Amino acid sequence: MALIVQKYGGTSVGDIDRIRNVANRVAKTRKEGNDVVVVVSAMSGETDRLIRLAQQAHETPDLREYDSLISTGEQASAALLAITLQSMGIPARSFLGSQIRILTDSAFSLARIQDVETKHLRRAIKAGVIPVVTGFQGVDRAGNITTLGRGGSDTTGVAVAAALKAHVCEIYTDVDGVYTTDPNLCPEARKLSRISYDEMMEMASLGAKVLQIRSVEFAKKYNVPIHVRSSFNDRSGTWVVKEDEKMEKVLVSGVTLNKNEARVTISGVPDKPGIASKIFTPISDAQNSSADGLADMTFTVPKADIKRALRLVKKTADSLQAREVLADENIAKVSIVGAGMVSHSGVASKMFTALAGENINILMISTSEIKISCVVEAKYGELAARVLHKVFGLEKGGLKKES
Amino acid sequence: MALIVQKYGGTSVGDIDRIRNVANRVAKTRKEGNDVVVVVSAMSGETDRLIRLAQQAHETPDLREYDSLISTGEQASAALLAITLQSMGIPARSFLGSQIRILTDSAFSLARIQDVETKHLRRAIKAGVIPVVTGFQGVDRAGNITTLGRGGSDTTGVAVAAALKAHVCEIYTDVDGVYTTDPNLCPEARKLSRISYDEMMEMASLGAKVLQIRSVEFAKKYNVPIHVRSSFNDRSGTWVVKEDEKMEKVLVSGVTLNKNEARVTISGVPDKPGIASKIFTPISDAQNSSADGLADMTFTVPKADIKRALRLVKKTADSLQAREVLADENIAKVSIVGAGMVSHSGVASKMFTALAGENINILMISTSEIKISCVVEAKYGELAARVLHKVFGLEKGGLKKES
Repeated sequence: MALIVQKYGGTSVGDIDRIRNVANRVAKTRKEGNDVVVVVSAMSGETDRLIRLAQQAHETPDLREYDSLISTGEQASAALLAITLQSMGIPARSFLGSQIRILTDSAFSLARIQDVETKHLRRAIKAGVIPVVTGFQGVDRAGNITTLGRGGSDTTGVAVAAALKAHVCEIYTDVDGVYTTDPNLCPEARKLSRISYDEMMEMASLGAKVLQIRSVEFAKKYNVPIHVRSSFNDRSGTWVVKEDEKMEKVLVSGVTLNKNEARVTISGVPDKPGIASKIFTPISDAQNSSADGLADMTFTVPKADIKRALRLVKKTADSLQAREVLADENIAKVSIVGAGMVSHSGVASKMFTALAGENINILMISTSEIKISCVVEAKYGELAARVLHKVFGLEKGGLKKES
Repeated sequence: MALIVQKYGGTSVGDIDRIRNVANRVAKTRKEGNDVVVVVSAMSGETDRLIRLAQQAHETPDLREYDSLISTGEQASAALLAITLQSMGIPARSFLGSQIRILTDSAFSLARIQDVETKHLRRAIKAGVIPVVTGFQGVDRAGNITTLGRGGSDTTGVAVAAALKAHVCEIYTDVDGVYTTDPNLCPEARKLSRISYDEMMEMASLGAKVLQIRSVEFAKKYNVPIHVRSSFNDRSGTWVVKEDEKMEKVLVSGVTLNKNEARVTISGVPDKPGIASKIFTPISDAQNSSADGLADMTFTVPKADIKRALRLVKKTADSLQAREVLADENIAKVSIVGAGMVSHSGVASKMFTALAGENINILMISTSEIKISCVVEAKYGELAARVLHKVFGLEKGGLKKES
């Protein structure tokens, strides 16, 4: 008998019929001999409705009140699922973050989970009652309601699974799993059957929306297997798990395309050692180049933050007596991610050669141990992603390392 | 400087514009030098929306889950009002029943308040922060969310006022106050400037919907003056207060008409002492008459409960070997209420004479110290109410006792 945590997203509980569908799946899992704990998001659309109300009241609402407001969405869906399970003769009980309790810090709207108590949950499980936990919300030490940021219900699911030492955290969503790249972009995209925590974190930070990054960090830390799958069919989805040998043999596991970033360049900075680090300590993916004793420094920021970033950067640029600050929103960032590239030096040159072969100019490069990102002109973004998907053989299982 | 608790009903916080209107009134009261604590209902329509969802999930939803679900309405409106006050530069903070805490018993959906802690509220008031309290909800000893029944926010308002020893609990609603009778029924109806707790309780139990009965019981017990008034104008409304000499001089303060009751008769009951009390201990307003050694027993129940009542009564009637059980839904109950009738015997005969003068047959009579109710045929209900309103001089301040 396994203990399974099932997290259902907003689309999966979007109306009473879909909630009934979820209840059927829970019932089936239970009938197969498992203990089940359910974590739910708000009904789709509900959180947005509440955010609109908050913004009607104040353009930048106080975040404590904002959290108290938007956490009602999960409170409602959890109660409705408990009622629906009961209507099918299955004992169930909803639990709020504050009732469990899921203790967080006090960073309203972006709180981090510090502890998940298990007393009430274990008692319910032992009594044969299915706990239905509100995702996305917690409570701080002072008793204020907090929320965990967009996608936070994933993190609730994994944190509850970690606290209960569950065998798996199943994340039910409206797609079949994690794909080698966005299928809308590249029809040859293939569902991954397995991906490592580190790869998944890179994919998420590069724009793949299927899981909140923090949930994967949490899963890695506590070694909780995540199974991302669809709530609308019974097919197996993607397992996000600890890296294994087989994974390391594949050079590249996925390709991402992010069109929501902008490039900022500070040009003509007097080239003294330490200046770059002074500017960029808080910014990742920065790079600098030097010519005639003056350096250019370049980095990317989300387009949504560009105004704020430029305001800050211009101040610093002035104090450094830099020549000018340039912004370019007409870019795309295409990235390859793979645990296998750690020990294989040929991956980067293969990527650059493939892009050059299509006459795509690389404007910026940034790397980590398991990813390489290239900034290219926006109009080449889709082409670049498709080319890389093909070059690294992702439509047929991915190029392997020669061993 | 006074401490004023202001309770706003669902219509008063029905949308963001109206919430802004409430915030303006709170600001004004504060500017006049008062400390203010606000209690809010859910935005109008919201509770009904949530109830519909619950009933879609299950015809008779588990009441613990039901309470957790419908309490979200007040959680949202309290946060929205706090945000709106803050947008006007007024420090404010929402408080849930569980955060305050408002301790209740565990009778989900009809819980009773046992204690209101004041520590957090006093701290906020002292810091110049306006507490915005969720009406209608509390928490039981086990940490479950409870609700107080329809109109429960009134009771929250009065209970908070009692706990804080506030000078007044202002109940803001969509009418101007308590009227001598329903103005839709009788255009001469007059707003009462004052009414006693006992009279208000009778009026409420007889169908006047302006206040939840329990809130008045609470106010009487702790001697909290209630001021019922409109949130859409600045006129003074009706004060519900302790009885005073002036009130006692008026024979009748109000006339109510209730068309939502049905009459049940058990006829041909063997007339042994004690039988009536056996049947009717749990039922008020029952009466019995006797002829040829067989008694008829008659009582009224809300029409909504008639099926359940008949099922129960038929069982009892069989065991008593009664002849038959009859139900009549075609009735109305017209009542006069007044603290002054306690010590004045002529009131009842004046009432009966007035009805007889219009050829209205009285089917049943029931009385308490400060009210007399007559059941009449439904078609005569409005006429009866208008006649009594006139006979007791309610359009011009009410008939006085000769002293």
